[in-house]
Amino acid sequence: MMARMAQQRRPSRPTIVDVAREAGVATSTVSRAFTRPERVNHHTREHVLAVAERLGYAPNPAARALETGRTNTVALLVPDITNPYFSGVITGAERAAAATGLTLVLGDTQENPAQEAELLRRLGPAVDGFVLAASRLADDNLHAAAQPVPLVLVNRASPGLACVVADFDSGTQQIVDHLASLGHRSFVFAGGPAESWSGARRWVGLRTAGRRRGMRAKRLGPYTPTLDGGPAAADAAVGAGATAIVCHNDMLAFGVLQRLAQRGVRVPDDVSVVGFDDVFTSALISPSLTTLAERTEEAGRRAVETLRRHEVHRPEEPLVLVLPTELKIRSSTGQVLVGPQ
Amino acid sequence: MMARMAQQRRPSRPTIVDVAREAGVATSTVSRAFTRPERVNHHTREHVLAVAERLGYAPNPAARALETGRTNTVALLVPDITNPYFSGVITGAERAAAATGLTLVLGDTQENPAQEAELLRRLGPAVDGFVLAASRLADDNLHAAAQPVPLVLVNRASPGLACVVADFDSGTQQIVDHLASLGHRSFVFAGGPAESWSGARRWVGLRTAGRRRGMRAKRLGPYTPTLDGGPAAADAAVGAGATAIVCHNDMLAFGVLQRLAQRGVRVPDDVSVVGFDDVFTSALISPSLTTLAERTEEAGRRAVETLRRHEVHRPEEPLVLVLPTELKIRSSTGQVLVGPQ
Repeated sequence: MMARMAQQRRPSRPTIVDVAREAGVATSTVSRAFTRPERVNHHTREHVLAVAERLGYAPNPAARALETGRTNTVALLVPDITNPYFSGVITGAERAAAATGLTLVLGDTQENPAQEAELLRRLGPAVDGFVLAASRLADDNLHAAAQPVPLVLVNRASPGLACVVADFDSGTQQIVDHLASLGHRSFVFAGGPAESWSGARRWVGLRTAGRRRGMRAKRLGPYTPTLDGGPAAADAAVGAGATAIVCHNDMLAFGVLQRLAQRGVRVPDDVSVVGFDDVFTSALISPSLTTLAERTEEAGRRAVETLRRHEVHRPEEPLVLVLPTELKIRSSTGQVLVGPQ
Repeated sequence: MMARMAQQRRPSRPTIVDVAREAGVATSTVSRAFTRPERVNHHTREHVLAVAERLGYAPNPAARALETGRTNTVALLVPDITNPYFSGVITGAERAAAATGLTLVLGDTQENPAQEAELLRRLGPAVDGFVLAASRLADDNLHAAAQPVPLVLVNRASPGLACVVADFDSGTQQIVDHLASLGHRSFVFAGGPAESWSGARRWVGLRTAGRRRGMRAKRLGPYTPTLDGGPAAADAAVGAGATAIVCHNDMLAFGVLQRLAQRGVRVPDDVSVVGFDDVFTSALISPSLTTLAERTEEAGRRAVETLRRHEVHRPEEPLVLVLPTELKIRSSTGQVLVGPQ
């Protein structure tokens, strides 16, 4: 299984500077020979192309980006690419990109605003625009990022920036109505990251809808919005005597369900559990998870389309696009059992 | 919710050509003013920097890439970013990249060799190297892609190219031994895409191990390696009278389990189901899935490390790195029930 690296002797790629030096012309002449041939003397062009071919140089997107300011590439940044929630956004963005001849690259910010800023900085010159899903950056930093290159937000709003968001007002109302119809008089919200805009929107919506129904609502957390956050969230919710736990997202809800099972707490007989996102696992597990479904694929598609229109200047486009949400009622929610069991 | 696009009036980004024109110097002089200041006359440099600042031009990675041939960025391409199997590879690659100051970008080839080739072409000039996970490209195309820029394969081998692969010889032996110990005398393999190298390795391993045990093995498919492939695979397996179905991957296995449940076929009483990958959903569903776990995070990490070493010329590194696999025995496999039930 041990062998030598066959590729070690590959010379470094020739650059435009190498071609210019070898051809005895300016780098701008090399560039024009490839991108604006009509602006270069015929003999010079032939000479440059011959040198480029001999050196193995090919004009590339980086060169074209410098020349034209366009790359035909867009980037989608997500806070946790291991969360299947983002699969829908990615799929939608890919379809919209493919439909308009754009290449989509993806970046994972790992829930880290510094990593997000770094990806914006590194990828900025290589792309025509960004879609930022669930951006964790502060408004000021978002606006700074939007100066050199267009960007569209998904499930994050920021004044003056285009965005595609889920209708959490209606979504949280659906959740609260469902819990109320099952006899719940209160619920806890197992919250996610403090920087999450949609997390904040979810809590505001839940609290408002709960108040309208005369239900007590309490926010717990923040918890890591993955399976890992489950034990702490479940323990706190059980400690608070909750009959219903609404979780920041499905991944956290799965972790909560696992912990409840370990503790012998029955779902939904002892406690109901609700998620947000409707990732594919939600319908597969037992009990299957009641969760708020978003139109993630449409969100990704509309975000790339908005970015595209944005580039070609159509100021009549809406700044904020709100997509409907739908509660998927499954087996993790049930009637509150009255009296001793 | 309707508003005007605030970003529309942003002018296009100034390019190095704009700065050169405005400053009255060659683009190569602008480039050197930023990247090799010692090679530019002091006054010229001050002038160029002042013009650049006035125009809002900043030297960028694309410019540095042209100048130095380095971008400090690596790309990881995967065939289906919505498959949580790749989460581990991505996480490991991200960690290794961060540890060496590299930025990782991701591309989704959507199981399409043409899309994979397009991403290689588009991203090539913007990165220092590629990690290709489960590449669907033919050997010839892989070798052509490896000429201008280093690449390392994950779960794909190709002569002369560095790769990190799972030990499917041992893994398939573990699966077959497990099924044999439960009394199974035969099994079917619900195969994935024809272009999948690991799919081919899995089938060869299963068949060989089965032969050693005196078990009959039959390959069915190819099936789409997602939930969508489940119905056809399950129906064909039931039609073939299988007592055990080994699936190309966990996502296909989930689809098979769903279909079997719809048909009233009990798992594992009537039929056992095995997957490959051990994605997070496998432990959460009911029945939980028996599946072959790979060290995906280690694979991603080692691939980026290999790419890094590859760049800095350490020919003593192994060309092929084989990582252990481990069968996770859960509830979807059981004894063959003998006689009428």
